[in-house]
Amino acid sequence: MVHIMAITEKLELIQDIDINQMNNEEIKWYWVDFDRPSEEEVKLLESYFKFHALAIEDCMYFLQRPKLDYYEGYNFFVFHSLNEETLETEEVDVFVGKNYMVSFHKTYIDEIEKVRQKIIENNTIGTKNHIYILHLILDNIVDKYFPAVYKIEDKINNLGIHVKKHSIRVLVNHLFEIRNNLLKLRKTINSMRDLLYRITNSDHFKNYKEMKIYFSDIYDHLLKLSEMIESNRDVTSDIHASYLSINADRMNTIMMTFTLVTSIFVPLTFITGVYGMNFEYMPELKWHYGYFTILGVMLLVSLLLLIWFKIKGWFDA
Amino acid sequence: MVHIMAITEKLELIQDIDINQMNNEEIKWYWVDFDRPSEEEVKLLESYFKFHALAIEDCMYFLQRPKLDYYEGYNFFVFHSLNEETLETEEVDVFVGKNYMVSFHKTYIDEIEKVRQKIIENNTIGTKNHIYILHLILDNIVDKYFPAVYKIEDKINNLGIHVKKHSIRVLVNHLFEIRNNLLKLRKTINSMRDLLYRITNSDHFKNYKEMKIYFSDIYDHLLKLSEMIESNRDVTSDIHASYLSINADRMNTIMMTFTLVTSIFVPLTFITGVYGMNFEYMPELKWHYGYFTILGVMLLVSLLLLIWFKIKGWFDA
Amino acid sequence: MVHIMAITEKLELIQDIDINQMNNEEIKWYWVDFDRPSEEEVKLLESYFKFHALAIEDCMYFLQRPKLDYYEGYNFFVFHSLNEETLETEEVDVFVGKNYMVSFHKTYIDEIEKVRQKIIENNTIGTKNHIYILHLILDNIVDKYFPAVYKIEDKINNLGIHVKKHSIRVLVNHLFEIRNNLLKLRKTINSMRDLLYRITNSDHFKNYKEMKIYFSDIYDHLLKLSEMIESNRDVTSDIHASYLSINADRMNTIMMTFTLVTSIFVPLTFITGVYGMNFEYMPELKWHYGYFTILGVMLLVSLLLLIWFKIKGWFDA
Amino acid sequence: MVHIMAITEKLELIQDIDINQMNNEEIKWYWVDFDRPSEEEVKLLESYFKFHALAIEDCMYFLQRPKLDYYEGYNFFVFHSLNEETLETEEVDVFVGKNYMVSFHKTYIDEIEKVRQKIIENNTIGTKNHIYILHLILDNIVDKYFPAVYKIEDKINNLGIHVKKHSIRVLVNHLFEIRNNLLKLRKTINSMRDLLYRITNSDHFKNYKEMKIYFSDIYDHLLKLSEMIESNRDVTSDIHASYLSINADRMNTIMMTFTLVTSIFVPLTFITGVYGMNFEYMPELKWHYGYFTILGVMLLVSLLLLIWFKIKGWFDA
Amino acid sequence: MVHIMAITEKLELIQDIDINQMNNEEIKWYWVDFDRPSEEEVKLLESYFKFHALAIEDCMYFLQRPKLDYYEGYNFFVFHSLNEETLETEEVDVFVGKNYMVSFHKTYIDEIEKVRQKIIENNTIGTKNHIYILHLILDNIVDKYFPAVYKIEDKINNLGIHVKKHSIRVLVNHLFEIRNNLLKLRKTINSMRDLLYRITNSDHFKNYKEMKIYFSDIYDHLLKLSEMIESNRDVTSDIHASYLSINADRMNTIMMTFTLVTSIFVPLTFITGVYGMNFEYMPELKWHYGYFTILGVMLLVSLLLLIWFKIKGWFDA
Ligand SMILES: [Mg+2]
Ligand SMILES: [Mg+2]
Ligand SMILES: [Mg+2]
Ligand SMILES: [Mg+2]
Ligand SMILES: [Mg+2]
Ligand SMILES: [Mg+2]
Ligand SMILES: [Mg+2]
Ligand SMILES: [Mg+2]
Ligand SMILES: [Mg+2]
Ligand SMILES: [Mg+2]
Ligand SMILES: [Mg+2]
Ligand SMILES: [Mg+2]
Ligand SMILES: [Mg+2]
Ligand SMILES: [Mg+2]
Ligand SMILES: [Mg+2]
Ligand SMILES: [Mg+2]
Ligand SMILES: [Mg+2]
Ligand SMILES: [Mg+2]
Ligand SMILES: [Mg+2]
Ligand SMILES: [Mg+2]
Ligand SMILES: [Mg+2]
Ligand SMILES: [Mg+2]
Ligand SMILES: [Mg+2]
Ligand SMILES: [Mg+2]
Ligand SMILES: [Mg+2]
Ligand SMILES: [Mg+2]
Ligand SMILES: [Mg+2]
Ligand SMILES: [Mg+2]
Ligand SMILES: [Mg+2]
Ligand SMILES: [Mg+2]
Ligand SMILES: [Mg+2]
Repeated sequence: MVHIMAITEKLELIQDIDINQMNNEEIKWYWVDFDRPSEEEVKLLESYFKFHALAIEDCMYFLQRPKLDYYEGYNFFVFHSLNEETLETEEVDVFVGKNYMVSFHKTYIDEIEKVRQKIIENNTIGTKNHIYILHLILDNIVDKYFPAVYKIEDKINNLGIHVKKHSIRVLVNHLFEIRNNLLKLRKTINSMRDLLYRITNSDHFKNYKEMKIYFSDIYDHLLKLSEMIESNRDVTSDIHASYLSINADRMNTIMMTFTLVTSIFVPLTFITGVYGMNFEYMPELKWHYGYFTILGVMLLVSLLLLIWFKIKGWFDA
Repeated sequence: MVHIMAITEKLELIQDIDINQMNNEEIKWYWVDFDRPSEEEVKLLESYFKFHALAIEDCMYFLQRPKLDYYEGYNFFVFHSLNEETLETEEVDVFVGKNYMVSFHKTYIDEIEKVRQKIIENNTIGTKNHIYILHLILDNIVDKYFPAVYKIEDKINNLGIHVKKHSIRVLVNHLFEIRNNLLKLRKTINSMRDLLYRITNSDHFKNYKEMKIYFSDIYDHLLKLSEMIESNRDVTSDIHASYLSINADRMNTIMMTFTLVTSIFVPLTFITGVYGMNFEYMPELKWHYGYFTILGVMLLVSLLLLIWFKIKGWFDA
Repeated sequence: MVHIMAITEKLELIQDIDINQMNNEEIKWYWVDFDRPSEEEVKLLESYFKFHALAIEDCMYFLQRPKLDYYEGYNFFVFHSLNEETLETEEVDVFVGKNYMVSFHKTYIDEIEKVRQKIIENNTIGTKNHIYILHLILDNIVDKYFPAVYKIEDKINNLGIHVKKHSIRVLVNHLFEIRNNLLKLRKTINSMRDLLYRITNSDHFKNYKEMKIYFSDIYDHLLKLSEMIESNRDVTSDIHASYLSINADRMNTIMMTFTLVTSIFVPLTFITGVYGMNFEYMPELKWHYGYFTILGVMLLVSLLLLIWFKIKGWFDA
Repeated sequence: MVHIMAITEKLELIQDIDINQMNNEEIKWYWVDFDRPSEEEVKLLESYFKFHALAIEDCMYFLQRPKLDYYEGYNFFVFHSLNEETLETEEVDVFVGKNYMVSFHKTYIDEIEKVRQKIIENNTIGTKNHIYILHLILDNIVDKYFPAVYKIEDKINNLGIHVKKHSIRVLVNHLFEIRNNLLKLRKTINSMRDLLYRITNSDHFKNYKEMKIYFSDIYDHLLKLSEMIESNRDVTSDIHASYLSINADRMNTIMMTFTLVTSIFVPLTFITGVYGMNFEYMPELKWHYGYFTILGVMLLVSLLLLIWFKIKGWFDA
Repeated sequence: MVHIMAITEKLELIQDIDINQMNNEEIKWYWVDFDRPSEEEVKLLESYFKFHALAIEDCMYFLQRPKLDYYEGYNFFVFHSLNEETLETEEVDVFVGKNYMVSFHKTYIDEIEKVRQKIIENNTIGTKNHIYILHLILDNIVDKYFPAVYKIEDKINNLGIHVKKHSIRVLVNHLFEIRNNLLKLRKTINSMRDLLYRITNSDHFKNYKEMKIYFSDIYDHLLKLSEMIESNRDVTSDIHASYLSINADRMNTIMMTFTLVTSIFVPLTFITGVYGMNFEYMPELKWHYGYFTILGVMLLVSLLLLIWFKIKGWFDA
């Protein structure tokens, strides 16, 4: 559907009027929101607003990075709203002209709904302008990035704490998923950050000047988010490396013990083999204390081997 | 062959006229397409159009990156068209003068053929100019990069899903091939992206000004493509690392079990060796329950070893 | 609480006056420090100083990177003070107007307390201005980064010296913690460095001009710190790689010895097995010197194997 | 020796005149080539041409990267020619003044000899100038980089094809050598690329303006070469990683089989040990079918183990 | 001590005069060198020269990167001289005013001593100025970096040649030390390089203009050094990777041989175990050729196993 909000010259808010009523000269500025528009409604972009075919094409297909294009008489923005659950992005397209703002989104965008509610509840909107609404939408969109990043940070911290409880397979799968999500978020956040940088620094936005500090505030948030994502990526790769090293070391300790045990029994078993041979003439077999002698010899061999391993430092591995 | 399209001052489209007819003053602008030209036709570049020897050399040899050179009176572009199957690039060379465009390609380029068809079918070409045709060709060339990247993304996703069914050798070969293809595509796409950046931002293209927004639209696509390639490369290296870790872990689990089994049987086998020796005087052998005692001892040893391994935590590895 | 320091036109220092007394025209410049302010005191930021809502919001929530915003009539800085023990950062917010400085911090900041003491003890403050105090605070904050970095460097050097005493698990945990701390410090220091760069190079600070060399001095320190952190990160990853290589090599040496020992005893034990079989007709068993012959054979086999290993160079592994 | 070529005002080519004859006013421009000069000849740089001591020093010692220095009245270039066999670089120093070019090289440079031949054979030199000769030399030098890079690409492709025939030691040595050569080439090519960039973009070369497109053409080649080297380095590291993974996997398969075989025989051998003990009272030994029973038990144990391994999925490793 | 050199208006060199004599108007320019100054002498920086407190602080404490500060009336440089043996850096601080240069160093700097000797021996100093001396000092300092880098390159080459003679532990320690030294050198050289870049390109040095080509010459050397260090770091990491691969491969070959040997003897030993059992009724034991039959069977088993391994390609590993 299409939601319309307009501020009259008398600074009064009127809502949900018909789009053709708006050519009324009494209107100071207005905001038209195309919320999951019907095909009929989409046609208004061209027939009523006369927007450029390329911009309308960008609205229709989801193949955009966040961006900003300058057309004659209006600017065209593409923003990415984040679905917290899936970390998928949803597109919000905005046209900003001298005295109007048109927003367009093919999915339900909670952040825009909240802006509408806020305007209705808040009496001061008459003193603001349509750029202020642009700022509110952006602010809401960006604020929603934070819980997504915090959730990932929590997951990473949990990895750190419970690391001993996890098998490597589980840990590696978690890390892979986390890194994948960080990649997705980075794409969105860095593009949005660069877009905000352009908004706050470009010459094109002289008429937004008094609003600049508000967009700077959002840019701050995006810088912070971008920094958080970079350190989280660094931390995940450190965790991976540490975990692999420690696990390899643990395996080694086990293998070592096995090796030591086997190294002692291999010669002993050989000795038992020797005296298990069936030769007719084996003088030791006749000795009265032959058996005990050989048990003693085996004990001695074990001790000598243990001492040798000790000297070589194999018990420290 | 050489295809000629010209627009007369009366905004009519004429086609396939002789190249020498064109000096006719009635022509507003024209497009000459050298499609797999014969040696005779190639000579027209010099004899008829008087293009610079260096530009003609660039047409003849395939040793170019996408690029843009400024010559007096015309600009010279090299574009790379993509063969979707092989991911090999094919060169399209374009000269753009005040009222003409000359395209040159030594292989059949589907994208150019499509542009020709579109112009013939479409009546509005009289209202456009030769720069618009340049844009159409570029747009078609770049649109063809997408299926190539999507195909690679699909392959990567399939790796993710079926990872358990593959042997490591198959997976590594797939990853190597995918990364190789991403490298090839990156070379093409990044060069084209930088070229489009120059087109949309250079001072040389003042007369393209009204077309700028169209070239920006193509630049957008290339930015998106470039970003997709970077994340896909990141994802493949994460997959490789994850898969190696998980596989190593699986090997370790198997080796561990083997180690545990062997660690138990080595001492037991040693004991059987002891009582398999043929000494004449081995008192235990005479005991009536010697055999069962020793079986019990061996059972005890096994249990003690298992308990020890359990305490050491070796079963969790 | 709120600490006030003011310099009168007669260049005298007055302290802890009431904030409403300050509109007194005799005051040349003043510094107001909000040290863990009460909710009541926080409201002064808006009611008394009329600071912008966005700046006040930044004071209230800890979500900032070090930064600098230009508001009409004053500049707004966010600095990060370091808690040496935890390496956590604490925020110090500063407003700098024509003739005043307002600092705001929700935790006790030792560095600011020291500045206050220094001013009281030092008689020359009358000849300075509020920018000089800004510099003193920054200088103290940055000076406190050094012991944190030195402590990490010491830990790294200790790793180098005592490397043989550590198990791999301990070393890897130390390295992980060190790298984590370096990441935290890098975030703080690099942001502060970039902020100082802006202060020394921006056009906005013409009235700070005579102070520029002092801020440059702090910038120097931050450059040095940033460089130290980068090399320490490089060194830790080299230590990790070296240690893993050496440890793997040590494991290999042990495994090799085991392998050599086992490779010799396996054939020997097989031979004893052969002559331990109970076949009725085994002619060798009847030979008078059969036993000694077979002992000799086994000795020979051992020697041949040792020579073969020697030739193959296995003892050098 | 010193080769001199000069073009008279009548556009005639004169050769191998004495250097002192040249002050003749009839000469339009000239080229002096110091080809492996004697000590006597080297002194001309200072005595005759009055070149700066620093530039002469750069000619004498081989410690240069390709570079460009602006001296009063002339520019000084250092180029690197490539010895295709060894990939060692040889230095070519060039002084370019208003109406002369002086080249200097302490080894025989084939590329310069070719330029000399081309000029003699070609009649049109009278219409060109000394900058054109500079271009010819550079073009020849850069053209010689291509076969070196192609040779490395061929080696890499051969690695890909014959990978199964090589031992790891051979492969790793090849890769190390290839990467080493790529490093050497990268150093040369990137420096030359940056130098050409300066030549085509610097303000100092206004008098080269009509030649700019020729230097751009060489710059193109260097960009292409630089790009080829980067992707080849990426490919070699992918090959290394793939080969190591596949080889490790192959080793693992072998070790696995060994482990499975051993895991089955260890318990069986233990059983034979039990019944090889010499206790007087071992009831099973007296059973008539004891032997066959125990053979059956051993068969059963083997089958159970095989089934267990199968269930655990160990045969898929 | 403090060394003074001054050039009179008559272009004569006077030495070791008292510092208070220098206010003499006959002096054209002078150089004061504080060589390991006493506390008394240090005070001259403030009392005599009136240098800024921040610059003097930088002289006193060694916490500087090479840098350049602009003070009113003079520039302040910090250079790093290299101790070839330890690769530790020593600080040289230089103040350069209109007609004087003051150098300050708390350790003995050989390079400065050499400059002093050169000036005394060389008669032409009267025609130069104090900037020329600055250049001489810098040139000497930078020239001393080369032997340090060459020494490291020699060590790397030796690693390449003697690689087979080293154990991995020795090699890894060497590489770690080399990489550590390269890091240290890189820090020094890159900072000095950036400093020289500022000197040759800054607007502040207009009065150094005629000297610019001399500083460019030093900058060249630093670029070359920086490049050498980067490739040496790349080479060391390639050596490390190659050596690890080759060593792992060598271990694998040995383990393989062991595995093959063991895989053959394990089943054979099992067979001997079977016929070593003491069952009363084991028909094979009674056969006259039972023993030889079973020897034949074991031979057969060995051969079949060898053939199977051959087919599986295990001998190529
Ligand atoms: Mg869309
Ligand atoms: Mg995106
Ligand atoms: Mg949403
Ligand atoms: Mg917000
Ligand atoms: Mg907010
Ligand atoms: Mg804020
Ligand atoms: Mg071509
Ligand atoms: Mg290409
Ligand atoms: Mg095609
Ligand atoms: Mg398109
Ligand atoms: Mg399109
Ligand atoms: Mg578009
Ligand atoms: Mg705050
Ligand atoms: Mg921070
Ligand atoms: Mg604190
Ligand atoms: Mg300080
Ligand atoms: Mg200080
Ligand atoms: Mg300082
Ligand atoms: Mg030279
Ligand atoms: Mg040379
Ligand atoms: Mg040559
Ligand atoms: Mg060429
Ligand atoms: Mg050419
Ligand atoms: Mg280079
Ligand atoms: Mg070309
Ligand atoms: Mg110092
Ligand atoms: Mg340093
Ligand atoms: Mg020294
Ligand atoms: Mg030098
Ligand atoms: Mg020199
Ligand atoms: Mg030089």
